[in-house]
Amino acid sequence: MDKQTILILALVIGAAVISLLYAFFLKAQLYKLSAKHEKIEEIASFIKEGTQAFLKKEYKIIALFVGGVAILLTVLGFIPAFSGAEGIGWKAALCFVFGALFSGLAGYVGMQAGTKANSLTASAANTSGMSRALKTAFTGGSISGLSVAGFGLLGLSASVLILYLATDSLALAGQIVIGYGLGASFVALFARVGGGIYTKAADVGADLVGKVEAGIPEDDPRNPAVIADNVGDNVGDIAGMGSDLLESYVGAIISAFTLGVASIIYSPAITAIFPLLIAATGLIAVMISITVIRSKEWKNPQKTLNIATYIANITVVVASLVFSLLLLDSVKPFFAIITGLLVGVFIAYIAEYYTSDKFKPVKEVADESQTGHATNIISGYAVGMRSTAITIIVLVAGILVAYLLEDMYGIGLAAVGMLSTVGITVAIDSYGPISDNAGGIAEMADLSKEVRDITDKLDSVGNTTAAIGKGFCIGAATLTALALFMSFANAAGIDSISILEPLVIIGLLVGAMLPYLFTSLTINSVGRAANKMINEVRRQFKEDPGIMEGTSKPDYAKCVEISTAAALKEMILPAIIAVITPILMGFIFGNKALAGLLIGSLASAAMLAIFMANSGGAWDNAKKLIESGLYGGKGSEAHKAAVTGDTVGDPFKDTAGPAMDILIKLMSMIALMIGPAIATIGSLLERFF
Amino acid sequence: MDKQTILILALVIGAAVISLLYAFFLKAQLYKLSAKHEKIEEIASFIKEGTQAFLKKEYKIIALFVGGVAILLTVLGFIPAFSGAEGIGWKAALCFVFGALFSGLAGYVGMQAGTKANSLTASAANTSGMSRALKTAFTGGSISGLSVAGFGLLGLSASVLILYLATDSLALAGQIVIGYGLGASFVALFARVGGGIYTKAADVGADLVGKVEAGIPEDDPRNPAVIADNVGDNVGDIAGMGSDLLESYVGAIISAFTLGVASIIYSPAITAIFPLLIAATGLIAVMISITVIRSKEWKNPQKTLNIATYIANITVVVASLVFSLLLLDSVKPFFAIITGLLVGVFIAYIAEYYTSDKFKPVKEVADESQTGHATNIISGYAVGMRSTAITIIVLVAGILVAYLLEDMYGIGLAAVGMLSTVGITVAIDSYGPISDNAGGIAEMADLSKEVRDITDKLDSVGNTTAAIGKGFCIGAATLTALALFMSFANAAGIDSISILEPLVIIGLLVGAMLPYLFTSLTINSVGRAANKMINEVRRQFKEDPGIMEGTSKPDYAKCVEISTAAALKEMILPAIIAVITPILMGFIFGNKALAGLLIGSLASAAMLAIFMANSGGAWDNAKKLIESGLYGGKGSEAHKAAVTGDTVGDPFKDTAGPAMDILIKLMSMIALMIGPAIATIGSLLERFF
Repeated sequence: MDKQTILILALVIGAAVISLLYAFFLKAQLYKLSAKHEKIEEIASFIKEGTQAFLKKEYKIIALFVGGVAILLTVLGFIPAFSGAEGIGWKAALCFVFGALFSGLAGYVGMQAGTKANSLTASAANTSGMSRALKTAFTGGSISGLSVAGFGLLGLSASVLILYLATDSLALAGQIVIGYGLGASFVALFARVGGGIYTKAADVGADLVGKVEAGIPEDDPRNPAVIADNVGDNVGDIAGMGSDLLESYVGAIISAFTLGVASIIYSPAITAIFPLLIAATGLIAVMISITVIRSKEWKNPQKTLNIATYIANITVVVASLVFSLLLLDSVKPFFAIITGLLVGVFIAYIAEYYTSDKFKPVKEVADESQTGHATNIISGYAVGMRSTAITIIVLVAGILVAYLLEDMYGIGLAAVGMLSTVGITVAIDSYGPISDNAGGIAEMADLSKEVRDITDKLDSVGNTTAAIGKGFCIGAATLTALALFMSFANAAGIDSISILEPLVIIGLLVGAMLPYLFTSLTINSVGRAANKMINEVRRQFKEDPGIMEGTSKPDYAKCVEISTAAALKEMILPAIIAVITPILMGFIFGNKALAGLLIGSLASAAMLAIFMANSGGAWDNAKKLIESGLYGGKGSEAHKAAVTGDTVGDPFKDTAGPAMDILIKLMSMIALMIGPAIATIGSLLERFF
Repeated sequence: MDKQTILILALVIGAAVISLLYAFFLKAQLYKLSAKHEKIEEIASFIKEGTQAFLKKEYKIIALFVGGVAILLTVLGFIPAFSGAEGIGWKAALCFVFGALFSGLAGYVGMQAGTKANSLTASAANTSGMSRALKTAFTGGSISGLSVAGFGLLGLSASVLILYLATDSLALAGQIVIGYGLGASFVALFARVGGGIYTKAADVGADLVGKVEAGIPEDDPRNPAVIADNVGDNVGDIAGMGSDLLESYVGAIISAFTLGVASIIYSPAITAIFPLLIAATGLIAVMISITVIRSKEWKNPQKTLNIATYIANITVVVASLVFSLLLLDSVKPFFAIITGLLVGVFIAYIAEYYTSDKFKPVKEVADESQTGHATNIISGYAVGMRSTAITIIVLVAGILVAYLLEDMYGIGLAAVGMLSTVGITVAIDSYGPISDNAGGIAEMADLSKEVRDITDKLDSVGNTTAAIGKGFCIGAATLTALALFMSFANAAGIDSISILEPLVIIGLLVGAMLPYLFTSLTINSVGRAANKMINEVRRQFKEDPGIMEGTSKPDYAKCVEISTAAALKEMILPAIIAVITPILMGFIFGNKALAGLLIGSLASAAMLAIFMANSGGAWDNAKKLIESGLYGGKGSEAHKAAVTGDTVGDPFKDTAGPAMDILIKLMSMIALMIGPAIATIGSLLERFF
C-alpha cells in the first residue's frame, strides 16, 4: 500500500467533492431567483414537467438494462472460466452500477439546472438586460459542467481508492474499475441516442406542420409541439451532450490509468494516478474560471466564453507542467497533455471554419442554394466530406506526437489533456441550448422585441459553440476510443494485431460498416418519430380550430408524450446492436477480430461523425445566412432550398453524428471488459478450427 | 525454364488472341451494316466526333502522365538504392507503358463499337423490330467485353511470358509485371474519373436548362447539350466502366500470380500461372456464351442477358474444376474460385434489391417523396447506408471462406474467379448505355413511337444491369485491392502489420479519410463542369431563338467541347492526390504506415462506394416509379422531390462512387510497386528517428 498514492487519490476525491459543492451552491443561487412572470413560469413548468417525465422513463429503461448487465456480470464471475478475468464479477458489476448512477446523477442535475436557467435567462433579459441574462445562462451551463466533471471524477476516483485499499494492487483496481466506465457508457448510449431522436423528432414535427403548413412562426405558443421542441433541446443538447463528454472524460482517465499501470518508463503507481491528478487540476481550473467570470459584469457573450476557456486552459497548462516535473521528473508527460489540449482547440477551430457563415464553405452552400434543392444538398455534402481532411490530419499529428513522447501512455495523456477542462466545455455547450430556449420562452411568453433581441444575441454565439462543441466531442471520442483500444490490447495480452490476418480484416470491414448501419437506423428512427409528431399536430389543429385562433390551448403534454415514447422505443435497437456486435465478434472470432472491429469502426465513425456534424452545421448556417437577407431572404426559392438542406442536416448533426461518438467508445469499453475473458477461454472459432 | 509453364502461357496468349479476332470479326459484321437513315447517321456522326475528340484529348493527357511515370521508373532504376527492387527500372517502365497501351486500346475499340452500335440499334428497331435491335445492342456490348478481357489478358500474359523467358524466374517476372497492372490502373483512373465527370456534367447541364427551364423533353434535338449527354454515356458508362473492370481483372490476376509464386502448398510455378489459365478459360466461356446468344433469335432482353451470364459462368465452373484437379490435384482452388463467383452474384442481387422499384427500399424512397425534398433525401441516404450491411457480410464471408481454403492465395483466386467472366459482365454493362443512347437517337431522329417503345424496353433492362454492374465493380475492386494488399505485404517482406503501432493507425485514419476527400473533389468537379454547361446552353437559347423554334440548329460541338475541357481539367487534381498520397506516406512514414493507408482507404472506400451506388440507384428508380404514375406522377410535388433525389444521386452513383474503385486499386498497385524499394532504402522517419 503506497501512501503517496492514497494521498493523491484523496486529494482528487476532495477536488471532485468541492466542485460538486460549488455546483450545488450555484444551483441554490439560481433557485433563489424566480421568473416573477406568470406566463414564463407557466411555460417553464410545462418544460420542466416534460423533461422530468422523459428522464424518469428513460432512467427506468436504463435501470433495467443496467440491472440486467450487472446481474450478468456477477453471474459470469462465478463461472470458473471467467474467474481469471478481474473485469468480470460482482466487483466490476458494482463499479458498473456506480458508473451508471453517477452519470445519471450528473445528467439529472445538469438538466434540472438547464431547464431552470432557460426561464430565468428569459426573465433576466426581460427585467435586467444583457449582462444579467448572460450571467444566468452561463451559471446554468456551469452547474451542468461542474456536475458532469464532478460526478464523473468523484465516482471514478472513489472507486479506484476503494479498490486499491481492498486489493492492494493498482493493476487489479484498473481492471475492475473498467466497469465504472462501462456504466457511464451505457447511460451515454441511451442519453445520446434517445435524446438525439427526441430532439429532432420534436423539432422536425414542430417545424413541418407549424412553420411550413400552418405558417406560424417558430416557438409560437399555438404550436402543440413547441413545448416538446424545447424539452428536446434540454434532453438532447444538454443531457445527451453532457453524458457523451462524461463518458469520454471517464474513458480517457481509465485508459490512461490502465496504460499507466503498465508503464515501464516511470514508477507505475505514479503514472497510473497521474491522469486522475490532471483531471482534478482541470476541475479546479474550471472552478477558478467560473468564479472569475461570475465576479464581473460582461456585455459580449463571445468574449466572455472565450475568456472562460482561456482561464481554465492556462491554469491546467501551468499546473500540469508543475506536476509533470514534480511527480514524473520529466517534461514529456506535460507535452503529451498539451498536445491533447491543442488538438481539441484546433479541431474546434476547424469545425468553426466549416460551419460559420463568416467563412467560405457556408457561403458556398448558400450560393448553391440559388440553383435549387439538389445543388444545396450536394454542396453541403461536399463541404462536410472535405472537412474530414484537415480534421484528421490534426488528429493524426496529435496522435503521432503524443506517441513519440510517451508511447501508448502518451495517447492516453493526450486524451486526458483534451478533456481535463471538460467542465468548461460542457458549461459553454449547455449555454447554447439554454439561450436558445430562453429565446423560445420569450417568444411564447410574448415578451417585448428588446427581450428577444437580447436572447437572440446570446443565442447567436450558441450556434457557433454548438458546432465547435460537436467537433470537440468527436475529437475527444476518437482519442478516447483509441486510448481504450490500446488498453484493450494490453489487457487482453495481445502484442500484435496484424491486418494481414483475415480475421482482423473481417473485423475491420464489419467495423467500418457498423457506423453506416447505425446512422441509417437512427436517421430512420427520427423519420418515424417525426411522422408520429406531424400526425398529432395535424390532428390537434384539425380537431380544435380554437388553437390557431388562440382561444384554446393546445395539448402540449400529448406531444411531449409522443416524442418521449418514440425516442425511448427507437433507441433500443441501435443500443442492442452496439452492445451485441463486439460481444459476438469477440466470442465467435476472437480478440483479434474484435480488435479489427474496434479500429475499423473507429476510423469509419470518426469520418462519418465529422462529415455529418460539419455538413449539418454548414446547411444550418447557410439557411440562416439566407434568412438574414441574402439571395432574396426568407420565402425566396433559395431559402426553400436552404430549408431542405437544414432539414436533412438536422438528424445528421444532432442524432446520427453524435451517436457515432458513443458507438466507438462503448464498443471499446465492452472490448476492454471482455477481452481478458476471451483471452482466457478462447473464441468459438479457435475451439472448432 | 519450365516447359509446362511456357506451354500454358502460350495457350493463354492464344485464347486472348482468338478472343480479339472474334471481337474484330464482330466489329466487321457491325460495320457492314449502316443505319440507312439520314437523320440517324447525322446524329451518329455528331456523337462519334464528340467521343473521338474527347478520347483523343484524354489519351494525350494520359500519354503525358504515363510517359512521365515511365521515365521516372526508368531513371529510378539506375539509382543504386533501388537496384534491388525489380519492380522499378526500365523493364517495369516498359510493362507500365504496355499496360496503359493495352487498356487504352481496349477502351478505344470498345467505345468505337459502342457508338456504332448506338445508331445501328436505333435503326434496327426502326426497320427490323425487337429481335434484331436486341442482337445489335448485345453485339456492340460483346465487342466491348471481348476487347476489355482480350486486350487485358493478351498484354499481361505476353509480358509474363517474355519476362519469364528473359529472367528464367516467375518470381522476378511477377515483380516486374506489376508495372503492367499500374499502367492499366493509370488509364482506369483517368477514364473513370474523367468519364464520370464528363457524363454527369453533360447530363445535369442538359436536364437543368433543357428539361426544367426550357420545358423540352429529354433527348430533344433542340437542346444544345443533348449530343454531349450522349457522348458522356459512351465515355463514362462504356469506356470508364470497361477500364475499371479491366484494371480489376488485370490486378486480380497479378495479385494471384504473385501470391501463387510464394505458395508453399503446391508447386509455385503452377500456382502462379493457374490464375492466368482460369482467366483464359473464362475468356473462352465468354466466347461460347456470345456465340450461343448470337445464333438464336431473342425477344426478352432480361432473359437473354441472364442466359448469357449462366452459359459463361457454368462453363467456367466446369473448366476450373477440371483444371483444379488436373494441375493442382486438389478441389480447394476450385472452391476458392467458386467463392469469388458466388460473391459477385450475391452482391449483384443485393444491389438489385436496394435499387429496383420492385422491392421495399425504392418504394420507401418514393413514399417519402410525398412529404418533400428533405424526406426524399434522408430516406435515400438511409437506404444506401443500410445496404452496406448485408453487402459487407457477404464479402466478408467470401474472404473468410477463400482464406480458410487456400490462405492468401485463396483470396487472389476468389478475385480471379469473380472476374473470370468479365467479358460478359462488360458486354452486359455496355448493353445498357447502348440501348439508352439508341433511345436517345430515336427521339432525336424523330422516329415513330413503336421504335421508341422497343428501345425503351431494351433500356428498362439496362437500368437494372447498371445498378448490378456497379455493385459488381465495387465487389471486384474490393476483393482485388485486398489481394493486391496481400501481395504488397508479401513483396515488401512484411510479416505483420500491427494496428497497435501508431504509424499503422495514422496510415489507417488518413486512408479512411481519403475517399471522403476524393468524393468531395469529384462531386465539386461535376458541379463546376455542370455550371459551365448550364451557362453555355442558356447562352445558346438566348442568342438564337431559332433553336427553340426548331428553325436553326444548336451548336452541339461547343457543348461537347465544354464538357471535354472541364472533365479533363477536373480529373487532374484527384488523380494527383491518388498517386501522390501512397508515395508520400510510404517514403516518409514507411511501409507499415502505407499498409495502414491501404487498408483504411479500402474499408472506407468500399462503404462509401456501396452507399453512394445504392443511394443513387434508389433515388433514380424512385423517381421513375413516380413518373410511372405513382403519387401524382410527373409534375406532382412528390415528383419534384424525387427529381431532387435523382439529381443528388447522379454524381454519387456515376462519378464519386465508381471513382472509389479506382482509388483503392491504384493505391494498392502503387504500393505493390514501391513497397520493395521502401523496404530496401528505408523511410524518412526511420532514418531520422
